[in-house]
Amino acid sequence: MTAKFSDRLDAAIRAKGNPICVGLDPRFDSIPKFITDAAIQSKGDTSLARAMAYVQFNQAIIDAVADIVPVCKPQIAFYEELGTDGICAYETTIAYAREKGLLVISDAKRGDIGATAEAYANAHLGGPKSPFNSDALTVNPYMGRDTLEPFLKTGAAHCGGIFVLVKTSNPGSGDLQDLKLSDGRFVREHVAQMVHDMGRNHLGTCGLSDVGAVVGATYPDEARALRKLMPDTFFLIPGYGAQGGSAADAAAGFRPDGRGAIVNNSRGIIFAYKQKPYIETYGEKGFASAARAAALRMADELQFISRMK
Amino acid sequence: MTAKFSDRLDAAIRAKGNPICVGLDPRFDSIPKFITDAAIQSKGDTSLARAMAYVQFNQAIIDAVADIVPVCKPQIAFYEELGTDGICAYETTIAYAREKGLLVISDAKRGDIGATAEAYANAHLGGPKSPFNSDALTVNPYMGRDTLEPFLKTGAAHCGGIFVLVKTSNPGSGDLQDLKLSDGRFVREHVAQMVHDMGRNHLGTCGLSDVGAVVGATYPDEARALRKLMPDTFFLIPGYGAQGGSAADAAAGFRPDGRGAIVNNSRGIIFAYKQKPYIETYGEKGFASAARAAALRMADELQFISRMK
Repeated sequence: MTAKFSDRLDAAIRAKGNPICVGLDPRFDSIPKFITDAAIQSKGDTSLARAMAYVQFNQAIIDAVADIVPVCKPQIAFYEELGTDGICAYETTIAYAREKGLLVISDAKRGDIGATAEAYANAHLGGPKSPFNSDALTVNPYMGRDTLEPFLKTGAAHCGGIFVLVKTSNPGSGDLQDLKLSDGRFVREHVAQMVHDMGRNHLGTCGLSDVGAVVGATYPDEARALRKLMPDTFFLIPGYGAQGGSAADAAAGFRPDGRGAIVNNSRGIIFAYKQKPYIETYGEKGFASAARAAALRMADELQFISRMK
Repeated sequence: MTAKFSDRLDAAIRAKGNPICVGLDPRFDSIPKFITDAAIQSKGDTSLARAMAYVQFNQAIIDAVADIVPVCKPQIAFYEELGTDGICAYETTIAYAREKGLLVISDAKRGDIGATAEAYANAHLGGPKSPFNSDALTVNPYMGRDTLEPFLKTGAAHCGGIFVLVKTSNPGSGDLQDLKLSDGRFVREHVAQMVHDMGRNHLGTCGLSDVGAVVGATYPDEARALRKLMPDTFFLIPGYGAQGGSAADAAAGFRPDGRGAIVNNSRGIIFAYKQKPYIETYGEKGFASAARAAALRMADELQFISRMK
């Protein structure tokens, strides 16, 4: 019997000693040229060539970080952009990451009514029968709690979880999320309460629930307040690094005991080879080693969080 | 030079004489058995067999209704459920529908930040280069206006449009959408204002904009109020038929002149062959004719709307 998602996530963070989630968001123009050139030479400038390059790139990144980080998170949009071939690359990437022992969060931000939500849940959270067999899925709460329940139900049946968007990392996230309600709360706080309520029936033995929340590192004050409303909720924290969030900002989403959150980094790890200081040390051919070095450095930057306990 | 999405949609509704959108939401267990049996016999009980059955089914439906309805709307969740094979069926279905002269709304309810939204937009709204080359895409506003802009930008460059979720048809849609704000408005009204504002720079010569709104037929009072806030906005109205919305309910979303909206029907048309009175007349083999008959009947039921002008 597989353990609950929350317990597996908590255990993976402890085992690896850091709460890093590596965002597998490939972009053709950012992947090492020797990979994209070879793919185009083999298949022409086609979506198949691009998808093949994504898989090759991702597999090398996964190989380089699987023993040091607990989680990865492919963003499906970058694969969907390539159509059928891209979706095949998404399937392949997820299967490979799981095979290598990483927990996988499918970052698709899905959300829809009844039977439609069930279909999405079957796609991402239905266990080995699912094409995108992931440990968790990001979901959008705008359509209401009844549209989240099918994800939770299917997830629970297969030891998976969900991360509900609460306060996102983008500059315009406040347009809706920061609206003030007539009862004095903010919309994001209302959603946080919903997440907390839904999670009550899905607590793991670790004390955290399978109903997580997306809370951006770019809004540390809001994150601190949201943490109080969701004491048992796993936070998936985007916005670290390229989007401007620091380690201290990310720390705002953690529990006082240093647990209950993972911090995502996409470009800062997978494209580290293009950035100082990695570019000099590793070069293009060493992109995977650069990713590993960047992940280790990030783990170091986040060390003080685990010392909070 | 192709006309703007709003002008093409308005013209298509006038040309066909009805505002029907046929929802192409295949489900394996609801498709005629002679189709699913043949697919399984040919390819085994695989996702490929299911995807092939979806394409065959959809093409027959499209052939049967393309000359009488203006728009179709495949719901990507039912294809995503089948993984790569299903997504291939989605691509094929969209291309076939456009070839047959239907406008296509990709019902994917996507939404994400910056470069991610751009990738989704490229997938669905980027013109002939897009794998899911659609005329419009449904999008989710929870993450804020800056996450909708990339869709609008890419759409506008390729004469496409978007439909923003405002008030959805499901029972729990009020959880967020009906929250009362401190200024006395409802969240859905705030989103409606955003949609209206965004549409101002995207008006077609018909006087309607390329920034549409999803407003369910199941909430006619809310639809009437939202129409006042969005006088120039195309409404995509789900919830008619199986979900309980009547023709009169759907009419609540239209402009006083009888224009500015399309009414979706999925199961009531594509699976009409399983329902009375069509089951007796057409039988399983006549599923496409049954769909045509159901569409004609729906057009008849909606006739009074066009007489509003």
